[in-house]
Amino acid sequence: MTKHTESYPLTLKKTVINDSFWSEYQKLIRDVVLPYQKDALNDNIPGAEPSHAIKNFKIAAGLEIGEFQGWVFQDSDVAKWLEAVAYSLSQTPDSELERSADEVIDIIEKAQQRDGYLDTYFIIKEPEKRWTNLEECHELYCAGHMIEAGVAYFSATGKRKLLDVVCRLADCIDSVFGPEPGKMKGYCGHQEIELALVKLYRITGNERYLSLSRYFIDERGKEPYYFSLEREKRDILEFWPGFSKFKREYMQTHLPVREQKTAEGHAVRTVYMYSAIADIVAETGDEGLLDACRNVWDNIVKRKMYITGGIGSAAFGEGFTFDYDLPNDTVYAESCASVGLVMLAHRMLKIEAKGEYGDVMERALYNNILSGMALDGKSFFYVNPLEVLPEACEKNPAMEHVKPVRQKWFSCSCCPPNIARLLMSLSQYIYTVGKNSIYTHLYIGGKAEFDLDGTSVILTQETNYPWDGNVRLKATGFGEKEFTLALRIPAWCRNYKLRVNGKILETGVDILKGYAKISRIWNDEDTVELSMDMPAVLIQANPEVRADAGKVAITRGPLVYCLEEIDNGSNLSAISIPLDCSLEIEKDNSFLNGAVTIRTTAIRTDDKYWPDELYRPAVNTEKETIIKAVPYSMWCNRRPGEMTVWIRYR
Amino acid sequence: MTKHTESYPLTLKKTVINDSFWSEYQKLIRDVVLPYQKDALNDNIPGAEPSHAIKNFKIAAGLEIGEFQGWVFQDSDVAKWLEAVAYSLSQTPDSELERSADEVIDIIEKAQQRDGYLDTYFIIKEPEKRWTNLEECHELYCAGHMIEAGVAYFSATGKRKLLDVVCRLADCIDSVFGPEPGKMKGYCGHQEIELALVKLYRITGNERYLSLSRYFIDERGKEPYYFSLEREKRDILEFWPGFSKFKREYMQTHLPVREQKTAEGHAVRTVYMYSAIADIVAETGDEGLLDACRNVWDNIVKRKMYITGGIGSAAFGEGFTFDYDLPNDTVYAESCASVGLVMLAHRMLKIEAKGEYGDVMERALYNNILSGMALDGKSFFYVNPLEVLPEACEKNPAMEHVKPVRQKWFSCSCCPPNIARLLMSLSQYIYTVGKNSIYTHLYIGGKAEFDLDGTSVILTQETNYPWDGNVRLKATGFGEKEFTLALRIPAWCRNYKLRVNGKILETGVDILKGYAKISRIWNDEDTVELSMDMPAVLIQANPEVRADAGKVAITRGPLVYCLEEIDNGSNLSAISIPLDCSLEIEKDNSFLNGAVTIRTTAIRTDDKYWPDELYRPAVNTEKETIIKAVPYSMWCNRRPGEMTVWIRYR
Repeated sequence: MTKHTESYPLTLKKTVINDSFWSEYQKLIRDVVLPYQKDALNDNIPGAEPSHAIKNFKIAAGLEIGEFQGWVFQDSDVAKWLEAVAYSLSQTPDSELERSADEVIDIIEKAQQRDGYLDTYFIIKEPEKRWTNLEECHELYCAGHMIEAGVAYFSATGKRKLLDVVCRLADCIDSVFGPEPGKMKGYCGHQEIELALVKLYRITGNERYLSLSRYFIDERGKEPYYFSLEREKRDILEFWPGFSKFKREYMQTHLPVREQKTAEGHAVRTVYMYSAIADIVAETGDEGLLDACRNVWDNIVKRKMYITGGIGSAAFGEGFTFDYDLPNDTVYAESCASVGLVMLAHRMLKIEAKGEYGDVMERALYNNILSGMALDGKSFFYVNPLEVLPEACEKNPAMEHVKPVRQKWFSCSCCPPNIARLLMSLSQYIYTVGKNSIYTHLYIGGKAEFDLDGTSVILTQETNYPWDGNVRLKATGFGEKEFTLALRIPAWCRNYKLRVNGKILETGVDILKGYAKISRIWNDEDTVELSMDMPAVLIQANPEVRADAGKVAITRGPLVYCLEEIDNGSNLSAISIPLDCSLEIEKDNSFLNGAVTIRTTAIRTDDKYWPDELYRPAVNTEKETIIKAVPYSMWCNRRPGEMTVWIRYR
Repeated sequence: MTKHTESYPLTLKKTVINDSFWSEYQKLIRDVVLPYQKDALNDNIPGAEPSHAIKNFKIAAGLEIGEFQGWVFQDSDVAKWLEAVAYSLSQTPDSELERSADEVIDIIEKAQQRDGYLDTYFIIKEPEKRWTNLEECHELYCAGHMIEAGVAYFSATGKRKLLDVVCRLADCIDSVFGPEPGKMKGYCGHQEIELALVKLYRITGNERYLSLSRYFIDERGKEPYYFSLEREKRDILEFWPGFSKFKREYMQTHLPVREQKTAEGHAVRTVYMYSAIADIVAETGDEGLLDACRNVWDNIVKRKMYITGGIGSAAFGEGFTFDYDLPNDTVYAESCASVGLVMLAHRMLKIEAKGEYGDVMERALYNNILSGMALDGKSFFYVNPLEVLPEACEKNPAMEHVKPVRQKWFSCSCCPPNIARLLMSLSQYIYTVGKNSIYTHLYIGGKAEFDLDGTSVILTQETNYPWDGNVRLKATGFGEKEFTLALRIPAWCRNYKLRVNGKILETGVDILKGYAKISRIWNDEDTVELSMDMPAVLIQANPEVRADAGKVAITRGPLVYCLEEIDNGSNLSAISIPLDCSLEIEKDNSFLNGAVTIRTTAIRTDDKYWPDELYRPAVNTEKETIIKAVPYSMWCNRRPGEMTVWIRYR
């Protein structure tokens, strides 16, 4: 086993975010989202669908009497909340929050069975049916999320209780599954355990966890087909009515993983699985798995990704469809899938620092993921459409899954805690540190402490990103040291300047795979300034994307913009813009948390002279109009209405 | 009761079609479709889904042993076939076909129960559950189709056997349902019996049938809600799994009919119901019902009709959605719904000769309905999309219901026999005769015999319509008579000339509600020539139709055109046309049955310089291209591929 990793992230405790854009979001999650989600998990939100999740653990622990309620994977919502709490605590101590988490962990520990098994559905409802329906019942998926929580909580607080619980759980799973004779040859219908086991391996050093993860990956999609064998043994064909309609692609079991070349099926499962595979590659240097990662990555980002970083374009199966099929209105683009895409991008970045991984990470983060949460932290999108007509969501069944306003909570509420845990661990995604090099992947203000061959270097970042493209990095805490500082130059950036200690850098910088690498002897208090021009730009989609033909999107820096009815009147489809229009930038601190907005002169179909008819010979009846675009992530924070990202051009 | 009818259709026997366009279709139905459908109903088509329909009748008749198979409404396919056979026989005697029909009728008669009841599902499978699930089980629907067949077969052949069967059936229904104490207060979930009963009334003169029809209409949507009461009494909630998801609108029971102002729910049910209502209005002069007809008609044709005359834009519920919601790719636009729209238009036309009824009749007939059948008569569309990407139909579940090629038969095969019966009765739709007036609604060559106050007038029509706009009518068979000849001037027609006996008509013609009315003393052998300019025209949709924003459709006369991949290469979304383009007309007798095609210079996005990426800053990279459009009704008669009606304009 040879490690295949160019650089590593810092631990959360080594980084602090202090950023005009992101600190607000993190504060919101700490102050609003985590307490809100705690209430939701405890069924204390009036008007929201009850979760039952904590109650299930209490029943499994023998602390309450009752029946299991909620989805079969309900446990995972508790785990994701605990994980987000852990990330929050690692940056901002909060004894009350920690006490709440400890109480939940106590209940979880009590719910765990003597042999380490832990899944409240099967403990309460069908104890004799453990591991009999891996295809549909999410046992290993829930275990994976609990393992991630255990690792995060230990890292944050040093408390071992949940880590011990999940080690026992992992040991229990390891005793049941594996290549050894007498063990089951299965794997989970919904991948998640695989990446969790690598995390557990990394924190415990126990190689059995890594081996088990690798086993699950390698077993997947082999013949004889495990899920067929499993089905033959069951008395009930389908746990989920209609589940057998899904093809093998839905669970990425259509081929052994090493033979998969394209992204197929359920989008979240896909990116969770490839995140685990990238982790295994990093640990083992497995070239066959790396090829699979690269092929699937390419297929996603070159064929199957919305401009917002959303993935998975079909509601049925929550999944990928086919190359260039990116409808804007019947879209799925689940928030969780973009969270998984960020996870995958980040892991690929560690294997190899290539700008495109950072670009996609940024695209998903600033657009599809942030759109998933309201600016007040109290409501969420599961599906992230690029075009919305509220009446269609209500009255055309093809858009039934698209909600025109964020929801308080969901009976299947995977997305809100997923967004919370990502944003609370965001500082992990900013930098990685390699052999005498520091890589800056994201432009987010704050402080980070690096260990470069035993020298401690503190890097302070100041920026107003994404509202402008100016970034200032200061290195302190050391005397003098030669190392490389690499800064990602985003693909959106056409012009930039680099200054070291105020002087424009003419030599001594290599542009390599999307990174500007400055290698020199650095002195304490040295500064680097990166000034990226950030004009508003019209973007078009590949002509093969039929849904976007004849249309452009307004973007600026990493942000995709959209038109909302509240700013532009109803019927946004009547608007078109000249390709050579002048896009003016405006900033009003009192508007949408100080968002930069974009204004331009456009053309609107003048329907004043339309008779009350559906069809007539074509004539040009147009008038000038001013349109205003707002960041996509912030849509629907004022009043519900029509929204569109793609605008016709003339 | 006062009749409210401006004019009446001729009986089928009084009209003969002899037309270069339509005679081919009728010949196809006689020679290919009716024998093919007979084989299909007898489960004799290799590779097609078996129908079981005749077999069910044999089992119900005690002639065979077996179980009921197929849909609960399978009987109606036999009835529609018999009706189409009847229309065929009334124009072209065919002893073999007639013998086949007689054999089927013998079986049907044997299957009928002693009390007149006739529905093979309930006779074979659940005899004790008759009339217990009117909401879902189509008993009265099937009865309605059998009544239509009985009336048509008697009119065509003079044979009473099936008419007697359906009279007994109607008497049985009348003994069960009605306002009288002790009778059931229900009505059918799928309307059809209502219009059938009016037909039966007209041929028998028995007013109880008209009253019963009126009763069903008036009872619909009243409180207490019949289908709720019915459900309470049943042991099984849903006959169709998931049926209870449908709202009352699905069956047009959300309001009493007189209060309905918009077209809601299942499209076929809607137009079948309003066809019956229009019939009742014609017979009774009921102004409240006429208002409902007019309101719903307006709502359909001004808000909810595709340019092809397709209606019902949603697959789920096969129904209407909301005003201006006409998506081209996730569309439904069932062939049967357009057949029903023609039925409704024709009935409205009899109440009042207004050009818009004829225009819609023509639009649906020449486009959405004809597209439902292949030029060889051997395959059919159920769903009629306006935009097709075959890969999307296969791989995006939102388009699963859209088939990119016509199918041999369907397990639910309502559409093929519905198209057959409409086209075989087409001559009924050409003319109506009113008080000393002859109305010409459709331009179809042939001969018709009118009785004007006792004078027999024969009208011979010659035309190449829809390939050109020249129509020649010759009146013969009488000496001299004063009457009005009214010719519909289609809404698509901007310029036309009228000649009588070769001389341009300057005076003596009134243009009234879309009809040119020539009132004069006619002499034997007088001719009228109508010359309508028929240029190709670009049509745009109302700006509220978001799916068509920035797009135009190519039309010529009554025909909507489309682009196919076979003529224009793949990726039709890359094509745009200038609004001022010159549309050239071509005709090649060896191409698609001699169809007129349209050619123009257009613009195609040049993707040669596109990098292997999804998004880039917008630039104009376009090149000229020649495009060729073919009549929409004839698409997919060569090779499967992409197709689009709506084309972006510049």
